[in-house]
Amino acid sequence: MAVPIILIVALIAGIVSILLSVYFRFLVLKEDPGNERMQEVAGYIEEGAKTYLKVQYKVLGIFVGILFLVMLFLLPNMTNPGTLNWEQALAYLIGCVGSMFAGWLGMYVGVKANTRAAQGCTIGTKAGFDIAFFGGAVMGLAVVGVALIGVSIIYWIFESPLVVLGFSFGASSIALFMKCGGGIFTKTADVGADLVGKAEYNLPEDDPRNPATIADNVGDNVGDIAGMGSDLFDSYVASIVAAMMLAAAFGVTGTIKAPFANVTLTAAGTSVFIVTPVVFCGVGLIASLIGIYVIKNKGSEEPGKALNTGTYLATLIYFALSAVITIFLSIGLGDDEIGLLWRIWGTSVIGLASGIVLGFTSDYFTRDDKKPVQNIAHAAEEGHAVVILSGFAYGLLSVVPPAIGVILAMTIAFWLAGVFGIAMAAVGMLAIVGTIVTNDAYGPIVDNARAIAEQGELGDEVIRTADKLDSAGNTAKAITKGFAIGAANLTVMALMFSFAEEAGFTVIDLLSVNVLVGAFLGVVIPALFSALLILAVQKNAGKMVEEIRRQFEENPKILTGEEPADFQKTIDIATKGSLRELIIPSILSITVPIGVGILFGVASLGAFLAGAILSGFVFAVFMSNSGGAWDNAKKWIEDGNLGGKGTNVHKASITGDTVGDPFKDTAGPSINTLLVVMSLTASIFMGLLLLPIFNGGAGLLGNLLTIF
Amino acid sequence: MAVPIILIVALIAGIVSILLSVYFRFLVLKEDPGNERMQEVAGYIEEGAKTYLKVQYKVLGIFVGILFLVMLFLLPNMTNPGTLNWEQALAYLIGCVGSMFAGWLGMYVGVKANTRAAQGCTIGTKAGFDIAFFGGAVMGLAVVGVALIGVSIIYWIFESPLVVLGFSFGASSIALFMKCGGGIFTKTADVGADLVGKAEYNLPEDDPRNPATIADNVGDNVGDIAGMGSDLFDSYVASIVAAMMLAAAFGVTGTIKAPFANVTLTAAGTSVFIVTPVVFCGVGLIASLIGIYVIKNKGSEEPGKALNTGTYLATLIYFALSAVITIFLSIGLGDDEIGLLWRIWGTSVIGLASGIVLGFTSDYFTRDDKKPVQNIAHAAEEGHAVVILSGFAYGLLSVVPPAIGVILAMTIAFWLAGVFGIAMAAVGMLAIVGTIVTNDAYGPIVDNARAIAEQGELGDEVIRTADKLDSAGNTAKAITKGFAIGAANLTVMALMFSFAEEAGFTVIDLLSVNVLVGAFLGVVIPALFSALLILAVQKNAGKMVEEIRRQFEENPKILTGEEPADFQKTIDIATKGSLRELIIPSILSITVPIGVGILFGVASLGAFLAGAILSGFVFAVFMSNSGGAWDNAKKWIEDGNLGGKGTNVHKASITGDTVGDPFKDTAGPSINTLLVVMSLTASIFMGLLLLPIFNGGAGLLGNLLTIF
Repeated sequence: MAVPIILIVALIAGIVSILLSVYFRFLVLKEDPGNERMQEVAGYIEEGAKTYLKVQYKVLGIFVGILFLVMLFLLPNMTNPGTLNWEQALAYLIGCVGSMFAGWLGMYVGVKANTRAAQGCTIGTKAGFDIAFFGGAVMGLAVVGVALIGVSIIYWIFESPLVVLGFSFGASSIALFMKCGGGIFTKTADVGADLVGKAEYNLPEDDPRNPATIADNVGDNVGDIAGMGSDLFDSYVASIVAAMMLAAAFGVTGTIKAPFANVTLTAAGTSVFIVTPVVFCGVGLIASLIGIYVIKNKGSEEPGKALNTGTYLATLIYFALSAVITIFLSIGLGDDEIGLLWRIWGTSVIGLASGIVLGFTSDYFTRDDKKPVQNIAHAAEEGHAVVILSGFAYGLLSVVPPAIGVILAMTIAFWLAGVFGIAMAAVGMLAIVGTIVTNDAYGPIVDNARAIAEQGELGDEVIRTADKLDSAGNTAKAITKGFAIGAANLTVMALMFSFAEEAGFTVIDLLSVNVLVGAFLGVVIPALFSALLILAVQKNAGKMVEEIRRQFEENPKILTGEEPADFQKTIDIATKGSLRELIIPSILSITVPIGVGILFGVASLGAFLAGAILSGFVFAVFMSNSGGAWDNAKKWIEDGNLGGKGTNVHKASITGDTVGDPFKDTAGPSINTLLVVMSLTASIFMGLLLLPIFNGGAGLLGNLLTIF
Repeated sequence: MAVPIILIVALIAGIVSILLSVYFRFLVLKEDPGNERMQEVAGYIEEGAKTYLKVQYKVLGIFVGILFLVMLFLLPNMTNPGTLNWEQALAYLIGCVGSMFAGWLGMYVGVKANTRAAQGCTIGTKAGFDIAFFGGAVMGLAVVGVALIGVSIIYWIFESPLVVLGFSFGASSIALFMKCGGGIFTKTADVGADLVGKAEYNLPEDDPRNPATIADNVGDNVGDIAGMGSDLFDSYVASIVAAMMLAAAFGVTGTIKAPFANVTLTAAGTSVFIVTPVVFCGVGLIASLIGIYVIKNKGSEEPGKALNTGTYLATLIYFALSAVITIFLSIGLGDDEIGLLWRIWGTSVIGLASGIVLGFTSDYFTRDDKKPVQNIAHAAEEGHAVVILSGFAYGLLSVVPPAIGVILAMTIAFWLAGVFGIAMAAVGMLAIVGTIVTNDAYGPIVDNARAIAEQGELGDEVIRTADKLDSAGNTAKAITKGFAIGAANLTVMALMFSFAEEAGFTVIDLLSVNVLVGAFLGVVIPALFSALLILAVQKNAGKMVEEIRRQFEENPKILTGEEPADFQKTIDIATKGSLRELIIPSILSITVPIGVGILFGVASLGAFLAGAILSGFVFAVFMSNSGGAWDNAKKWIEDGNLGGKGTNVHKASITGDTVGDPFKDTAGPSINTLLVVMSLTASIFMGLLLLPIFNGGAGLLGNLLTIF
């Protein structure tokens, strides 16, 4: 089965993307980095970010090394015993390195762009916006470029989706560390800084006297840029690999089954369907590039509008270009296959469209001019407890619309093209991920720019400009999160189906008790995971609080501004704490699925994944949206509503925001990554679970729970 | 198939229980109701509770009437078209009336016992304890007595578990109103009273000048006594009916299948297995009666120990007596059937034992001398936000141990006796529900007694005694909740299996997209339900706050104590608000399952139930335990720890408690009832869903999502 030449579209798009990323990096670096004080602050942030990454990558090295050895020597592969191990293990290594590179690059440019964007704000909104946007684009384009090049080349060489699976597993095991670790880091610093600085000493946000300020800024980079980047890298690759594996599996059986029509596959058809996800992603990347190019040239005084225009534009271009590429893909195929190809195009369009809708529902629940945030702000008038209850309830309520959105996308995609359609809807949703990551990485850059403008004493006018950029970043972030959660959800659904195909079972029967047990454990695990991450933030923030108090007490000159605070110490606490606290969650995310498979069998593991996906969706959406809503309710009050800053209403809204911080930036988004890691672990360790010692996939306890 | 005479055990136990209940009521009423002021307060509470019940029952009347007519005329019954409708509808009516009677009686005695218990505290701990305990027993024994007599007589007359199902549906539709409505009422009053009285005017708890004080006390009765009573009435009957229906279904196929061994049934065996759940419950009731009798005669200066002794004693007696009755049940059966009967005895023992374990894990997470509550209290030192994060995280963490407990009970029970074993484990867990409800109803009685002692100015010594009784009540309440959640979980699992048996499908395949959609919606619904209930409390509490402020402003003499507040007005707000706000949740609980069945088919509805059960378990445990933990952290601080009352730490802990109030007393426990109502709705409306117009159970959209 030869690899169709059209795969080259993806490879070229990937290479162009990387080149553009390098070009944007050059554009950013040539800008004015601002006055001495700004450069000093930016230097601290850069130093802190580097320290964190160095320590993080060292620990990751051990983890990756162990898993590499396990994959190389121990993992019996069920399809090609002995021959696939080194290939998959190698691809795993490449995936790890690719993800680490993407994270590092985004962070490197992020810390360079922040001070330049602050300086740009002295010129005007557009200048500041451009620098931050290009900075974000470096990350966005690098992430997608590395992913696409990796997937295309690996598939070209090895011609096996199972090897690409190794690449995906690499990407996602790094993402788990980057996302959870970064999430714990950033909120340790943020919550710690707020609790002492704001609440006890009445220092304003980003005040340079606060010893945790720099750590807070570093956190924005390690959590929001590197973390979110590796998260989307991970979902992106996983969605491609799930679709490829399903297509390959259907190639073996010779049909793609769907309610609309079953289609018998030719060898040529199978090889086309396997690369379709990669090619569509290549087209999506081109659409993103055009969108970014248009924004670059037009620019805007309204940053929020500019970001949204980019998203819409990329979406429309994707719709058109993917239709064109479908014509190319259909060359040489039979009529039935061509019909299916068009239906598959339809599923990717539906996926992307529903991604946009999901983004906007999460926007609705977190915008300060809509009812939920308004009601939450008014609840703050009744005190700390009521603002919490209100945000909690709206967060839960906000789960319903995106759930219905995902269900609609899933059912229509399934109707059109079966489970392969579901996988392709996920691919479609992530097709313009270049744009999404760009917009998302823009957020923390302008957030930091605002802080640097404050610390570099650029004056109120400039800070207001930076605030305007920042507020556009927050909306973009809300939309990205909706997108990321929806895409991860569809992706892991597809992975579950591909897992089932791979394991060779056609039924996961909830009326079997071992399956029900798997589902039960699956539903519970996102709750456990959230609990561990929130406790981690709480514990580390406590240490941070002690350290800040200690510095203020031991050296009163810090508060008067005569001597600088010891930033290194607080960064150190956040770094070490975050690494220590992610050990248990990361071990759980790999051992629990394997344990379920060993004890209760692969069907139970399938149900475990399903349970985790559904309950994970509820927790991820609820936490992200309630956190975002509290944040914006606080900002709305700070804009002078309901009495404004300093009032009791404001204090209550700060409580909401502080509770929401680890919800929306630590636990909520980490759940996505958790789900992908668990799903991939199931597929990677499949061969182990099917060994005779584990009753050939029935599980050690499986026979005890089977009725004969 | 004749009804075995041994069913008479249950009937006699039920009658004795009612008689004892009447006797205890007499014992309570003949006690001294205290001084004039106390009687006045108790009078207000009684009046308020009566008003609430009157309005509630009026609305219920309409709801019950509509459902009765639907069941009588519209519901096509699939097994015996035309003949079963009136019987099931009649049983439904009886179930409604029984549940309403049990709720009314408990409340009636509760409001009589509170002032007498307060007066009893002037004599000593034992005297106060006895009165409150007897008051609780009136409720506990009446609930179980009415349930058992109802089930036995209905089965004796109609010889069909499907008719008993109607009785169960009646019990549970009332329970939904009583539990949700009561939960909203009690927290509207409680939160409202706290927000204004405590926070704004610095009035102590239960201060008679606070206009919402009486409403708060009424709430304890309508939420905690009547609500919890009808909730357990509901689970109790549902667990019995699930087991009966499964046994009847196995009677039709002629075998009970289990991993341990399949057993072929004789006609005599089937009729014995159908009544076994009722007989075991009768035995459990006798065990409860003996336990209560022993406590009554021995009494104790340590109320907490006395309550626990009663629980242990009833458990041990149940183990022994149920073994004895198993010997009687096995008369005339074959060896295989006798073996199965003993294994079934084993499942009920495992169920009850694991109920005790569940109770104690929830006790661990909510006790003030254990790590979670201690850490939450210390988190209050960091402020409002951190205490919330900490309680939230521990609440989520507390889901894991009971989940493992339920999974163990479920798998062992299944291994022994198949799905019938799971149903019987639920029956076992609820067998000593007489004791459980007694201990639980004791709680709000002593809580009210404390308030009355305060308002009747009985002095510090008496209040300390009442506090001691109250604290024992809180522990009992935590244990009851663990029990109630575990039992409801197993019961609804059993109902799901019996639903599948009834609908005649043997597989609920998660790899079918319509089934996956059902599971998705099921996982989401407890989140939606919780959101609606919490928003309801928040909305009503807001109105309550306005009313309290209005009264204080318009009549300053209320605050000086010269004139009484307008209690009637606050009770009115809580009553009307709670009824208005439960309309949407109760409509959803019946229409959503029917809608899922109509659109996606009965298998999807099965998955919907499974998803709702699992996610409902997570939400119920998390909310109940975090709420309980916050409550006790606050109390621990009020006992003088970490600075005690009036400090900032205390204020933060009050925020935790206020957030926890609707978690633990409204949303958390209502989810149980929701699950039972949805499961029973699925079974009751089965005939409708199997109509040809809905593709004979495949659902309107089912064919669109099926691969041929």
